[in-house]
Amino acid sequence: MTDVIIIGSGPAGISAALTLQANNKNFIWFGKKELSAKIRKAEKIHNYPGLSDVSGEDFCNMLRQQLSAAGLSPIEKTVTGVYAMDDSFSVLCNDEMFESRIVIVATGVETLKTVEGEADFIGRGVSYCATCDGLLYRGKDIAILCTAKDLEHEIDYLASLARTVHLFPLYPAPKQFAGNVILHKGMPERLLGSLRLEKLKAGGQEIPVDGMFFLKNSVSPSVLIGGIQMDGAHVHVDRSQATSLSGCFACGDCTGRPYQYAKAVGEGNVAAHSAIAFLAKH
Amino acid sequence: MTDVIIIGSGPAGISAALTLQANNKNFIWFGKKELSAKIRKAEKIHNYPGLSDVSGEDFCNMLRQQLSAAGLSPIEKTVTGVYAMDDSFSVLCNDEMFESRIVIVATGVETLKTVEGEADFIGRGVSYCATCDGLLYRGKDIAILCTAKDLEHEIDYLASLARTVHLFPLYPAPKQFAGNVILHKGMPERLLGSLRLEKLKAGGQEIPVDGMFFLKNSVSPSVLIGGIQMDGAHVHVDRSQATSLSGCFACGDCTGRPYQYAKAVGEGNVAAHSAIAFLAKH
Repeated sequence: MTDVIIIGSGPAGISAALTLQANNKNFIWFGKKELSAKIRKAEKIHNYPGLSDVSGEDFCNMLRQQLSAAGLSPIEKTVTGVYAMDDSFSVLCNDEMFESRIVIVATGVETLKTVEGEADFIGRGVSYCATCDGLLYRGKDIAILCTAKDLEHEIDYLASLARTVHLFPLYPAPKQFAGNVILHKGMPERLLGSLRLEKLKAGGQEIPVDGMFFLKNSVSPSVLIGGIQMDGAHVHVDRSQATSLSGCFACGDCTGRPYQYAKAVGEGNVAAHSAIAFLAKH
Repeated sequence: MTDVIIIGSGPAGISAALTLQANNKNFIWFGKKELSAKIRKAEKIHNYPGLSDVSGEDFCNMLRQQLSAAGLSPIEKTVTGVYAMDDSFSVLCNDEMFESRIVIVATGVETLKTVEGEADFIGRGVSYCATCDGLLYRGKDIAILCTAKDLEHEIDYLASLARTVHLFPLYPAPKQFAGNVILHKGMPERLLGSLRLEKLKAGGQEIPVDGMFFLKNSVSPSVLIGGIQMDGAHVHVDRSQATSLSGCFACGDCTGRPYQYAKAVGEGNVAAHSAIAFLAKH
């Protein structure tokens, strides 16, 4: 069993990984090789101590060089679930399972508002994982809300299974999809149904659907990690970055404002030190 | 009245200053132009995200360049006391008084152990400020514990007033002092007296003294700030870096372990944002 699994490759996850590495801990790190799309998009960073008025692109390149020099690279897998066991965690990446004694959650925040009714139908029509649940909708009618161009391959996959796909792309210039994909503008207004999702309201009309996929680069920890205590949209943590689940630490934007690089790297560092102390104690 | 006074020019104070500046807040910043002696001494920094295996000297130079580009430079004054008023703070630098609505404490930690009895005689023979209390000991016998070479001018000043000075220098190669300065090795073991300090135990002998000065680059916040709640040697803060005194925030090593640059810059950033929110609210 691995000591630590880190989920997320933004500044908080990077800071945690560098600190665990510097302390010779064994860990698995899930994230994106390109690190964080959000950093890359930052125009200028003015208040990160040590780097003067650096662009997001430059900051990202510096981080990649530093990781590469440290022999670190995140594994490109999407974590689809984290389950607290007696004294360990099972971390699911679609159909692969990993085990660790500690989990560090650094998943960021999706600033996207949820759709009215979204939370009511999780597991009853609402899904965040095409690979996990796609097969359930073979030959059926579904809707997809997608927040990023790099997730379009998941739309292709779902379109290859479903009869009709109502697509709500929230990024510029979506590509050409298969003929059964109907493009909609903006966000759906509301999800409706009784026991299961039955239809959605969008652009003034009601569209009957059997399921709806929300394809985002970062899923709320409340969805990802069963039983974790939240403060509104954020993971509840104490000063040691400990969450309500023993052995699970969280850091970066997912723990709350300010959404700042300095705050994220600081919390990643503290989470790693708390993980090391936890391992020493248990 | 100034909005904010920042005390300290290590990574936490620098981070707070950069963030207040980026948000166009007016503030006074007390610290050292050379920033932090501790950073400068660091051999290699491995886990500060964005800077790969940088030396302390290089990190310090990068910070100075960044501050200079931002038009920022700490004012070289030693803060000798912080007093909470009704809805403001009075900050004393020897005989000069400054006022602000908010104070951000980023004074670091002095890892030096206290001497047994030190806390018992504060204000009754024990002093942390040569300029404040030196004149009280004209023609008298004193002891001085000094932790850094850059404070030797304070020893000179005290030696010009006192009859005899028992000096405990805790740094290598102290300079030649005036003839009334007697050098001792190591730390004094204990301070003794009844109402006031009367003598100290050191190297197995008892030395009669009227007062003892502790000359350090960073004084414990418990001594500096009347009424502030401590957790042992550290300032008690919540997740927003708020201390027990309304309008007073603390960040960096003074709030506790891990003593890490990333943690310090993160907390400095959060303290600055909390200060901005506090100003907006009050």
